[in-house]
Amino acid sequence: MSLAIGVDVGGTKVAAGLVDEQGRIIAKLKRSTPAASPLLTEQAIADVVTELLAGHEVTAIGLGAAGFVDSARATMLFAPNLAWRDEPLKQRVEERLGRAVVVENDANASAWAEARFGAARGYRDVMLVAVGTGIGAAIIIGGELYRGRWGIAGEPGHVRVVPDGRLCGCGNRGCWEQYASGNALVAEAREFARRTPKGAMRLLQLGGGLPEGISGPEITQAATEGDPAALRCFQTVGGWLGQGLADLAAVLDPACFVIGGGVSEAGELLLEPARTAFERALTGRGHRPFAEITVAQLGENAGIVGAADLAREASQVPVPQVPVPHITVPETTRRPLFRRPLLSRRAL
Amino acid sequence: MSLAIGVDVGGTKVAAGLVDEQGRIIAKLKRSTPAASPLLTEQAIADVVTELLAGHEVTAIGLGAAGFVDSARATMLFAPNLAWRDEPLKQRVEERLGRAVVVENDANASAWAEARFGAARGYRDVMLVAVGTGIGAAIIIGGELYRGRWGIAGEPGHVRVVPDGRLCGCGNRGCWEQYASGNALVAEAREFARRTPKGAMRLLQLGGGLPEGISGPEITQAATEGDPAALRCFQTVGGWLGQGLADLAAVLDPACFVIGGGVSEAGELLLEPARTAFERALTGRGHRPFAEITVAQLGENAGIVGAADLAREASQVPVPQVPVPHITVPETTRRPLFRRPLLSRRAL
Repeated sequence: MSLAIGVDVGGTKVAAGLVDEQGRIIAKLKRSTPAASPLLTEQAIADVVTELLAGHEVTAIGLGAAGFVDSARATMLFAPNLAWRDEPLKQRVEERLGRAVVVENDANASAWAEARFGAARGYRDVMLVAVGTGIGAAIIIGGELYRGRWGIAGEPGHVRVVPDGRLCGCGNRGCWEQYASGNALVAEAREFARRTPKGAMRLLQLGGGLPEGISGPEITQAATEGDPAALRCFQTVGGWLGQGLADLAAVLDPACFVIGGGVSEAGELLLEPARTAFERALTGRGHRPFAEITVAQLGENAGIVGAADLAREASQVPVPQVPVPHITVPETTRRPLFRRPLLSRRAL
Repeated sequence: MSLAIGVDVGGTKVAAGLVDEQGRIIAKLKRSTPAASPLLTEQAIADVVTELLAGHEVTAIGLGAAGFVDSARATMLFAPNLAWRDEPLKQRVEERLGRAVVVENDANASAWAEARFGAARGYRDVMLVAVGTGIGAAIIIGGELYRGRWGIAGEPGHVRVVPDGRLCGCGNRGCWEQYASGNALVAEAREFARRTPKGAMRLLQLGGGLPEGISGPEITQAATEGDPAALRCFQTVGGWLGQGLADLAAVLDPACFVIGGGVSEAGELLLEPARTAFERALTGRGHRPFAEITVAQLGENAGIVGAADLAREASQVPVPQVPVPHITVPETTRRPLFRRPLLSRRAL
């Protein structure tokens, strides 16, 4: 049995799993990391991988990271919601581990997992849209991940949907993820609670009395109970989601959209208004079929499973790549590489 | 030498050419058609093809049509700027000609021509954006046309760029082609001439004194002469074009955008403001390369050359398809098929 390790590298946590060829997770670990420190995140990755490696024969190690990964699948070019800028993630983790890793965009990893083992099985042209803090996405064309010329295709979260709209972490205004993400849902609910506390009584109650106490789970719970304000928040965000899916369908005409990410756990609360908006907005409607809009099946494990499977695949189909240093670079040699102030070894 | 016929089927004219394997046009014909009558257009297609067939051995016939073509490459599902709705174009033309034709979206045909013989040669991931009356587009991925699940990928002209924006021929509001097309350019200039005739003196002069006399060539001429109002029109429309290209790059990350269509004949008047807006709007700029934005090379012949080449390719690689009737259906049998009021035989 061939085992691979997949690591889901987020802003505030690292989750890793030992994954078999059928996409099953044999063992799993999680570690919290401060969002602002790539260094601490890299150390946390190395730690969880080392722990999972103990006592197992592992064929490949894959990292799925929330940001723009370059076409060499080595460097985190830019992460709108994290502090990472041109970070040589692959090299840094390989130095620590002493063996090769494959770096992939986290939405690409999740989409791959859904295509191989989840909601997108059997589809050749499919788009995964991960609705979490922001919006991640991945494009599968002809059954293969499409990465674009520079490796960073599938970032519709940063398509402008409102001229001069809300400011985005990417530096632009009016990006889709400012309207259709988990952050947008929470901002909508909190703003409502601030302006109209009487209408938001249930939301405030669940949030411990303060608008700042309201986040995703509270909004989902209130909406499930039928609270009109919470339902309205889902309708607004779901409406923006569906409009954006219609715009993506105009460009990509996929068979299916798989909606993943934390907010997708709200299921039909999000998908029903999204489908309604999609069917209202799709260009050429009435003369073309509607793409399916379905919820992801692998939940929070998708990133781990996909990163592992993509790394396994990469290890089986050798691609020309820069030689990987299979030695641990001594600390003294490594230091000058860092461009940011170094944390003491103790802090690691 | 293998010859193929390519037909560029627009709303108001049909242009056809005899094309060799190197994409050279040996002979060419044009015919005007009324935009509202698919029937007359189909007859015009059959006429020009018949004329070109005389005395030549032709291996394949391809039609490139301005609208949504289904995945069987047979039916014009919907044409935002034409009267066609679920029109079985392939069948209708085959009945008239007594031989097989291949139907393709016109932007797909043009993109294919640019990829094989023009500005997109050597690129694997490229997007053609045809800026004409509306905006057509085509996506080439891994060196192949990407058509989407239902054959209608590559319609970014109908992505919503302004909520509650200008009404579009597709029935939606705020579509990109209402801001970045030739129609938008002309509307901008005419509206300006109406509101501020003194500022639009040169434009009005070229347009024969009336705002309605101003169209694309007049605006291009005035801008070339340095007329500030005409330059401003190109800057506005070019700005919308560049913003849309940045949005497409966020999703597709192509190596290159090839700008075709009638308005692209204005060259840098359009492309310079488009590039400026693109580089200002691209998400992750500074951490990723800018895609090239270049002008199409084959001009108005691209549709003919691409349709011919795609038809030749389809005839060489046999694909499973519905048997083609190689007989001319008698008029009496054919009549009940038409769902629209029949024109008399004389009118044809």
